[in-house]
Amino acid sequence: MATAAIGRVFIETLGESAPAEVLIRGWVYRLRILGKTAFLILRDCTGEAQCVLTSEALKTHRLKSEDVVEVRGTVRTEPRAKAGFEVAVADLRVLNRAAANLPFLASHGIESVGLETLLQYRPLALRTEAVGDIFRVQAALLAEFRAGLGRRHFTEIVTSKIVESGTEGGTSLFAIDYFDRVAYLAQSPQFYKEHGVAGFERVFETGHVYRAEPHASSRHLTEYYSLDLELAFIEGPEEVIELERELLTEMFEGLNARLGRTLLKHRAAPLPSLLRVPCWEFGECLERLRKAFGRGDLAEDLDPEGERQLCELARQASGVAAVFVLGFPLAARPFYTAPRGSAGAAASFDLLFEGIEITTGGQRLHHRDDLESALRARSIDPRGFERHLAMFDLGMPPHGGLAIGLERLTCQVLGLPNVRQAVLYPRDRYRLAP
Amino acid sequence: MATAAIGRVFIETLGESAPAEVLIRGWVYRLRILGKTAFLILRDCTGEAQCVLTSEALKTHRLKSEDVVEVRGTVRTEPRAKAGFEVAVADLRVLNRAAANLPFLASHGIESVGLETLLQYRPLALRTEAVGDIFRVQAALLAEFRAGLGRRHFTEIVTSKIVESGTEGGTSLFAIDYFDRVAYLAQSPQFYKEHGVAGFERVFETGHVYRAEPHASSRHLTEYYSLDLELAFIEGPEEVIELERELLTEMFEGLNARLGRTLLKHRAAPLPSLLRVPCWEFGECLERLRKAFGRGDLAEDLDPEGERQLCELARQASGVAAVFVLGFPLAARPFYTAPRGSAGAAASFDLLFEGIEITTGGQRLHHRDDLESALRARSIDPRGFERHLAMFDLGMPPHGGLAIGLERLTCQVLGLPNVRQAVLYPRDRYRLAP
Repeated sequence: MATAAIGRVFIETLGESAPAEVLIRGWVYRLRILGKTAFLILRDCTGEAQCVLTSEALKTHRLKSEDVVEVRGTVRTEPRAKAGFEVAVADLRVLNRAAANLPFLASHGIESVGLETLLQYRPLALRTEAVGDIFRVQAALLAEFRAGLGRRHFTEIVTSKIVESGTEGGTSLFAIDYFDRVAYLAQSPQFYKEHGVAGFERVFETGHVYRAEPHASSRHLTEYYSLDLELAFIEGPEEVIELERELLTEMFEGLNARLGRTLLKHRAAPLPSLLRVPCWEFGECLERLRKAFGRGDLAEDLDPEGERQLCELARQASGVAAVFVLGFPLAARPFYTAPRGSAGAAASFDLLFEGIEITTGGQRLHHRDDLESALRARSIDPRGFERHLAMFDLGMPPHGGLAIGLERLTCQVLGLPNVRQAVLYPRDRYRLAP
Repeated sequence: MATAAIGRVFIETLGESAPAEVLIRGWVYRLRILGKTAFLILRDCTGEAQCVLTSEALKTHRLKSEDVVEVRGTVRTEPRAKAGFEVAVADLRVLNRAAANLPFLASHGIESVGLETLLQYRPLALRTEAVGDIFRVQAALLAEFRAGLGRRHFTEIVTSKIVESGTEGGTSLFAIDYFDRVAYLAQSPQFYKEHGVAGFERVFETGHVYRAEPHASSRHLTEYYSLDLELAFIEGPEEVIELERELLTEMFEGLNARLGRTLLKHRAAPLPSLLRVPCWEFGECLERLRKAFGRGDLAEDLDPEGERQLCELARQASGVAAVFVLGFPLAARPFYTAPRGSAGAAASFDLLFEGIEITTGGQRLHHRDDLESALRARSIDPRGFERHLAMFDLGMPPHGGLAIGLERLTCQVLGLPNVRQAVLYPRDRYRLAP
């Protein structure tokens, strides 16, 4: 090959090498013909470059948008080009062709393209700025979450998603044919996280969890990605809240720094600090909702409207539309939840952020006796949980933790209305593909 | 509480604060009584501290190993203590008790403890140095893998593990009851990775994959964690190999730097550079095995013994017991594998490291026509893969990638004989718990 003599370079490095012969590869993003001259905007994962060739050459190669090409040429200064330089094409090779009549193009706005089409043509959708941004932001959230915990003595763990039974008593489980037995997809790494803190004190896991929920709302998925952490030696749920304040604030600062311009395409202001968002008791929240919005209908839990209203009240109070709600009714929480006081409240919290719950967390019971009582109080035979309860005989410290749904967090960071927009390949009651 | 006035600190910070009143929490690692004085070695996730109290106090609290305690006391210089200081205990509180008669203790050697017991008592096992090290190393490998790819323009993706059908034609799949349908657990993110490179050019994923393999050997799991990457615009599998050389070398350097002393407890030398390990063609490997070991029985694939022998030959040739084997017979590789030349070889490779295969990778076909031909050549109707093949009409660049099994890599780094030792909660034909 004539082009083999020089190695391919990323487009982001072109500015450094002018003037020089370069070899670049990417997708045809845009084409423009001006008389005898043609402009090809080529894109790779690092940027875009304006390439100049003859209109004749363009026609010879039958080039069109989304085709995959290799360009050999010379970088030269060109003040009229966006980057301040362009590539004079010496040689062009089509590596693969895209089909004609694609439903949309990477260079198009996709406001009028439906979610179904974006899912069906995922690779093409990722090449658009709007969809690509979602998953670049998601990847950055993941990286920042792990980095923040790495700085705080947390050890990453990987736990099985194939389990014998559910953590919360057997509902909403997907059954698996496991050789001659039935197994289930894990609803949560909760038990394993707790075993993890008994070993490592501080653990986190990022992984899928599964809920066989038949309703297909804009908030629910049957498979989602959970950012889970658990830490030992806490005295109460406030320490978990404090950790989340700091962790999310660092993650948001990281995103503002790395992807600030991307964020501002989707939201009015950079991601806020959560260090001063309020923490309101559940009862206090009901009272505030009653006073401000005449909500007299809530008792055991919040509803989506209540979550939005509380965020609005928090925004008025602190300038940030986020609030920790602490002390939900214990009866509605899983059996392993620690109580808060003796009036039926739980030492557990939700974080509501810009209108929706993105975290559930709290302190857990750490004495075996208390767990057995809690199971019996829910009419569950503790013997069914013996394998788990036995771990509380090995030196189980007081502990708590939280879980953040990655898709919901991505949605809230970018202001996306449907959680499916923040999943590459969403799964729900009706969707198994692509 | 009397102790609430000062906040808990990590043991690693104690040296900085001497002499001062401190509050620490952790597990009782060791106890020693010398007349009226007792020594308690307390451990948290950052280190261990020698605490001094009266033998009387020890008895009053009925302290024993693995109990979870809080100590308030004063740090003072003590040249005879390992860390150069100790904590004079002013107040001690038992936060939770461990059971008596545990099968082993964190401070014990566990050479004589069987794998079954280590799995059954996971939290306790993690508190031992030997088992804890495995999962600290594993976490570091994960972090280094992601960091190395982050530096190279790779975007992390999260793809569904619930799929309509297998990537390789429907064998060894676990079936899931998905509402009124059958779905399957993903065997590999291969197709999604390929769609990912068509969008982002370079993608990686770290996640579980599932194989319903009925054999329960020391190398096989039904659920394992795959470090997957895929990159576009390659000219051949050599570029994937080159990337892996650099990536693993960086990961190993990172581990040597962060966990060098841990590694040297398990292996004779630090982790090697892979920059100069050889890359041998498959046919050449057979020839070398024939000459050196009289192996005339291999034709289509290597066997475990052959992998060990090749690593030994590589060690003799280059000083490092690792070798890339390139050009396996195409017929034995998945349909999406690109050919290498026209003599029936595949553009795919394995990396053998210290006796075992830890990576499979290669270049993939990127033209739809070629994929359809490859399917037909395997007597598979391309219409069954239409949803996947349609992605090759959207501008699919030439691409390739690889997958590293995290558990196997962990085993090879630490010299562990059984892959189950490198999984917190292994799953195989017979094991669904804990």
